Amino acid sequence: MIYVVGLGPGGKEEMTERAFQALERCQIIIGYDSYIDLIKEHFPLKKILSTPMKTEVDRCRQAFALAQEGYDVALVSSGDAGVYGMAGVLLEVCGEADIKVEIVPGVTAACSAAAVLGAPLMHDFAVISLSDLLTPWPVIERRLRAAGEADFVVVLYNPSSRNRADYLQRAGNILLSYRPASTPAGWVRQVGRKGEEYRVLTLGEMIQEKVDMFTTVIIGNSSSRIIKGRIVTPRGYRELP
Amino acid sequence: MIYVVGLGPGGKEEMTERAFQALERCQIIIGYDSYIDLIKEHFPLKKILSTPMKTEVDRCRQAFALAQEGYDVALVSSGDAGVYGMAGVLLEVCGEADIKVEIVPGVTAACSAAAVLGAPLMHDFAVISLSDLLTPWPVIERRLRAAGEADFVVVLYNPSSRNRADYLQRAGNILLSYRPASTPAGWVRQVGRKGEEYRVLTLGEMIQEKVDMFTTVIIGNSSSRIIKGRIVTPRGYRELP
Repeated sequence: MIYVVGLGPGGKEEMTERAFQALERCQIIIGYDSYIDLIKEHFPLKKILSTPMKTEVDRCRQAFALAQEGYDVALVSSGDAGVYGMAGVLLEVCGEADIKVEIVPGVTAACSAAAVLGAPLMHDFAVISLSDLLTPWPVIERRLRAAGEADFVVVLYNPSSRNRADYLQRAGNILLSYRPASTPAGWVRQVGRKGEEYRVLTLGEMIQEKVDMFTTVIIGNSSSRIIKGRIVTPRGYRELP
Repeated sequence: MIYVVGLGPGGKEEMTERAFQALERCQIIIGYDSYIDLIKEHFPLKKILSTPMKTEVDRCRQAFALAQEGYDVALVSSGDAGVYGMAGVLLEVCGEADIKVEIVPGVTAACSAAAVLGAPLMHDFAVISLSDLLTPWPVIERRLRAAGEADFVVVLYNPSSRNRADYLQRAGNILLSYRPASTPAGWVRQVGRKGEEYRVLTLGEMIQEKVDMFTTVIIGNSSSRIIKGRIVTPRGYRELP
């Protein structure tokens, strides 16, 4: 049996009880080093295989092999394992094999970052990763344009990395052709973890910001506004409470 | 102090520890009847104000008034309070008043439904509510078209109700002009709760389905496929594991 477990943004207090119980039920926990570090103190008796970044497929193959040997294995992701996480890779690796897989959802970065910034996701939103590792930039750009055109609130995952330092600026400039520079926006770095930082600003200011890959960015829609330093998107286009 | 707390999809085991602790810290818990029913057994000593549907603004005003009297109040939402939930309404009601508000995120229906259906949200997705209570249908339609055009995975909240029985069909037909009828799709009813049901099918079949307001619908993108009865969207357009 393999559990694919979303840990939520931070440590144990951000996990669901169901996620915690799934980890308790397994003999082996597998995950990326820095996610494992967030939780390992709570599981002192487990066999823990922590592996470096960029070996997602290997990690899934390892979980699959161990499950075939009869172990109950937990494969952990930060946030929700089903949002750009390990769940899909694992299901692809398992294919039609006779291994039971349970996916245990967690709090994804869109939700945890939104909670820090206010309530930007009260209306329709689009979640877009700016990573072009597996997706050509033209596909990403087309989605940014569609989200801009249809006035979605936009959540950006993986907004930047060393090799694509200007991607947030590019994305912001695309959205600027559809909504004003004064549109409320914000970023949260290391959400739910030690050293969490955030900033509420405008779309115009956002394109000047330097953010890293541990950051989630949210850009409001045409109705979003700032209330007491927080971004609030009204629930609809008909209501003024 | 007011905590706006997302309970996650179901009962206590789907809540984060942080959400549970926030409820424990408050003297008063306020929420819609059926959400309160999911958790009240765990808080036998709390004052609980459960109110019927469609009084969200009143409920927020009540929380605000009680906080001004000095109580610590928890306002609860199912799923994540920041996704079409109470968080934004409460921040609007509080305005610039000197009340501390903490938003505690939870597992939203997009994530919990995705986990039941497989791993449909491994790539960019759009979350769209089909409720036209506060949003004119042309706005909703424009977003469905944008999501179709840019090949987003689509998550539909509030896909149906008595007064708009054909909205899922309308939405499905719009998406059918951008992606094939064979596109994997699925719905989950009462996710995480007693009586949870789900079905994995195609977009072509989805437009014939009868769903209710307790249902979340997910429609894959052009790369989504079925693996062992589950919807899997590959992480990118370049990778074949």
